[in-house]
Amino acid sequence: MPEARFKENKSNMNILDNIRIVLVEPIFGGNIGSVCRVMNNNGITDLAIVKPRPETDWEDARKLSCSAKAQLEARKEFATLAEAVADCTVVAGTSARTGFYRDTSHSPREFAPVALESAKGHKIALVFGRENKGLSNEELARCTHIIQIPSSELYTSLNLSHAVMVCCYEIFVASGTFQPSEEKAEEANSELRERMFDVWREMMLKTEFTHEQKLEHMMMGLRRIFSRGKLTVPDVKILMGLAKQSIWVSDQWKKVNQ
Amino acid sequence: MPEARFKENKSNMNILDNIRIVLVEPIFGGNIGSVCRVMNNNGITDLAIVKPRPETDWEDARKLSCSAKAQLEARKEFATLAEAVADCTVVAGTSARTGFYRDTSHSPREFAPVALESAKGHKIALVFGRENKGLSNEELARCTHIIQIPSSELYTSLNLSHAVMVCCYEIFVASGTFQPSEEKAEEANSELRERMFDVWREMMLKTEFTHEQKLEHMMMGLRRIFSRGKLTVPDVKILMGLAKQSIWVSDQWKKVNQ
Repeated sequence: MPEARFKENKSNMNILDNIRIVLVEPIFGGNIGSVCRVMNNNGITDLAIVKPRPETDWEDARKLSCSAKAQLEARKEFATLAEAVADCTVVAGTSARTGFYRDTSHSPREFAPVALESAKGHKIALVFGRENKGLSNEELARCTHIIQIPSSELYTSLNLSHAVMVCCYEIFVASGTFQPSEEKAEEANSELRERMFDVWREMMLKTEFTHEQKLEHMMMGLRRIFSRGKLTVPDVKILMGLAKQSIWVSDQWKKVNQ
Repeated sequence: MPEARFKENKSNMNILDNIRIVLVEPIFGGNIGSVCRVMNNNGITDLAIVKPRPETDWEDARKLSCSAKAQLEARKEFATLAEAVADCTVVAGTSARTGFYRDTSHSPREFAPVALESAKGHKIALVFGRENKGLSNEELARCTHIIQIPSSELYTSLNLSHAVMVCCYEIFVASGTFQPSEEKAEEANSELRERMFDVWREMMLKTEFTHEQKLEHMMMGLRRIFSRGKLTVPDVKILMGLAKQSIWVSDQWKKVNQ
């Protein structure tokens, strides 16, 4: 199912290859698996784990990664954050808290073009902390940028994979790699639309829905209704066919009633 | 920890109250719980479930909802999609597939202002299908809008809660409810910056880092380095103090070496 269509934009594909997701001491295997899935959902493939915990539930990780199991197996493991980001220019840490120089934070949307610009020629890293206490001050000090994800005061704490999702999604959208589905049917032009309105006008009279005096007022209402969105050629053909059929029925009925 | 700060914008808070998340026949309890969490992360509180499955693992739902357990308990249940969206004006269905009129789909970012505009005065719904097969054509037909979430051809299938996250996040960001953290320290003005550069100039000479002929060239490099981002008053004070200390050390050293 090649549902998502891509522009032939190899350079942007390479840019996404330069973006590394770094998880520091993640607690839940399921979250690691979910992160693999959301990375691949957004065209990102470089995963590093700092200080993986011996008790990690890798079975849960595999389950939650769904069809991104290859991504999970391709992860790199490092003993320290320093090693995991050593080859990266931009190193962005995520933080929900404020203070300790976190006040100069960027939103994921502001950060996306910064990330893509640097990733044109260099590896860059997005660093996510532990589920229960995030990144330490020492770890944040190693970052060139701090990212704060918008959240409601109702509940500010995001699940790890949802935090990764928002950051990867913003970068993926900004990369312009995704080509949204477009209406393939041709848009109707004025001449075709007017032919349709002529048929509807005739229908309104023949069905005795309205009489001559009120006709143009009714037509104006119909024009407004049918102008609220684009009308394609197939749309107009449906609307025209329907009105013609009502005209035909009216003609039959009048024959019977004569 | 009131980390996320809110503008006093009660009207927008009410707008978010008018947005309903509708899950049609969800399979995994864990996903329902995760959806509760991401809804609350984005200030959205109205959850409807259509045809809840008798075998739903509600324990898993509670676990994954974390601190959004009240949200989970407050869910409404409906036998049909028609009932779940009966009072809604805009009804937006999410779909990963194309075809069957899905070609006129909106991205979550395009849809967010449409949702907020309608939600000013009416209930609106975002409808998400089953994890394995999404929404049926009949269900999509009931929708006024179709939303397609950008995804990579690497892996187009999103987890249910991540799909809900992207849609809710876009609406929450567009609502303008979230006030990002801002640098609270005052930005340094030119006069203060120049005082700092004077001290650095003196330091470079006194420490014999450079000599008079190369001094202005070095200073230009330093000016570039310190102009790449905003410098606050506390930043400048740190930089100035550091240079003054080096000047003091140089003076002591010269006294000893005389």
